[in-house]
Amino acid sequence: MTGRTKLVIAYDGASFAGWQSQLHRNTIQDQLEAAVHRITGEPARVHGAGRTDTGVHALGQCAHLDLVTDKFEPDALRTALNAVLPSSLRVLRCQRVSATFHARFSAIGKVYRYRIWNGPVLPPFEEGRVWHITSALDEETLRAVLSQYKGRHDFAGFAASGGKPAEDTVRTIRTARLKRRGHCLTIELEGDGFLYKMVRLLVGTMVLCSQGKMTVSDVLQRLGEGAGGGRRLVAPAAGLILVRVRY
Amino acid sequence: MTGRTKLVIAYDGASFAGWQSQLHRNTIQDQLEAAVHRITGEPARVHGAGRTDTGVHALGQCAHLDLVTDKFEPDALRTALNAVLPSSLRVLRCQRVSATFHARFSAIGKVYRYRIWNGPVLPPFEEGRVWHITSALDEETLRAVLSQYKGRHDFAGFAASGGKPAEDTVRTIRTARLKRRGHCLTIELEGDGFLYKMVRLLVGTMVLCSQGKMTVSDVLQRLGEGAGGGRRLVAPAAGLILVRVRY
Repeated sequence: MTGRTKLVIAYDGASFAGWQSQLHRNTIQDQLEAAVHRITGEPARVHGAGRTDTGVHALGQCAHLDLVTDKFEPDALRTALNAVLPSSLRVLRCQRVSATFHARFSAIGKVYRYRIWNGPVLPPFEEGRVWHITSALDEETLRAVLSQYKGRHDFAGFAASGGKPAEDTVRTIRTARLKRRGHCLTIELEGDGFLYKMVRLLVGTMVLCSQGKMTVSDVLQRLGEGAGGGRRLVAPAAGLILVRVRY
Repeated sequence: MTGRTKLVIAYDGASFAGWQSQLHRNTIQDQLEAAVHRITGEPARVHGAGRTDTGVHALGQCAHLDLVTDKFEPDALRTALNAVLPSSLRVLRCQRVSATFHARFSAIGKVYRYRIWNGPVLPPFEEGRVWHITSALDEETLRAVLSQYKGRHDFAGFAASGGKPAEDTVRTIRTARLKRRGHCLTIELEGDGFLYKMVRLLVGTMVLCSQGKMTVSDVLQRLGEGAGGGRRLVAPAAGLILVRVRY
């Protein structure tokens, strides 16, 4: 499998110290690069579509790498990688792509899902995979805030300062949906891109509003001014899933 | 909460050595009895609707116990128990019941679910929760075998010898459904009762048939004769979930 290869990847974020390579930390990027090196002998660099923080999960993260070897067909490369990767990190698909493809710069959109378990008892299977909120959230308010996110806005007020000084903070959210199934609330956001911790700040703000600690007009103001100020709540990483990267 | 109390319980079977109390083993019954003792000071016995083996999960196992204390209202008892239980074992509901209620003898039916991941790669979130079969299963054959299970049969040929010498091995399966969602096959069985390892043997037989290692007429024969013989395959515990006990 010579040339540029696209990987679609799934992982349980609780098992790793986030995406980005770090010295002496168990990161997803490091795991993938070590696996590629082990099976091909090549010191390949794996470029992700974007970083995910510690605890954030992925069903369809994307990455690319360049290989010199032609030892592996796409399915064989996937099998070989999965054989050496930990089971909490899986390569779902390998695909030959043109040399102009770039996992980050070719992406035209991302889909994120955030799950809240809004009930008194957290079922064992949901541990580490949801934000558990025991007091009843007002679903109507959640929906009212969510609908404000849709469209093109300056999301500077919904970005964590920890990231790089944000160049352009205008983003377009194309889809913003909320579904309830029993105690489980699922928020799905699709957009052309998301700032650092933006999804978790958007969800945290929805929860603050539904608890009466902020109002919809506070949200409108923050969106309109394109700046921070006021209460901020970053929803826990465990509830967040990178579902898909669109190209 | 004096008197007889019914508990509805969920657990991740991978965390425990099955339901039944055993010396020096981490069982669900032992965990519950220790929790009751810790919060009430009473050495209560917890009676389950039935045993589940190591690795088998529950979304709605049921049990009952008798308490002398009137210290706890039902919701407070639930909260107190969950505060001392491991997070992989949760009490979903506590309910006062009449002294004639018995978790095992009052049960009129049970619902089990069995999940098979039939695809090349097992997503991280499904680990320990499905039977992973990489080679494509023939869904039509799975359905053909499953439909034979419905109704009243002598299931002696689908019981593990490890159980007690089965008194009456005639059972009625009221519902037998198969759903596919992507790579995930979900088999749901509802019946008046199930013999030891019966669900896992029924599923194992479906898989043997869909792999051409048994035929539907072998299954019919085994059901008709009410006896064993021929190939037997016990599906792995990880795929099995006790969904509900009906009273």
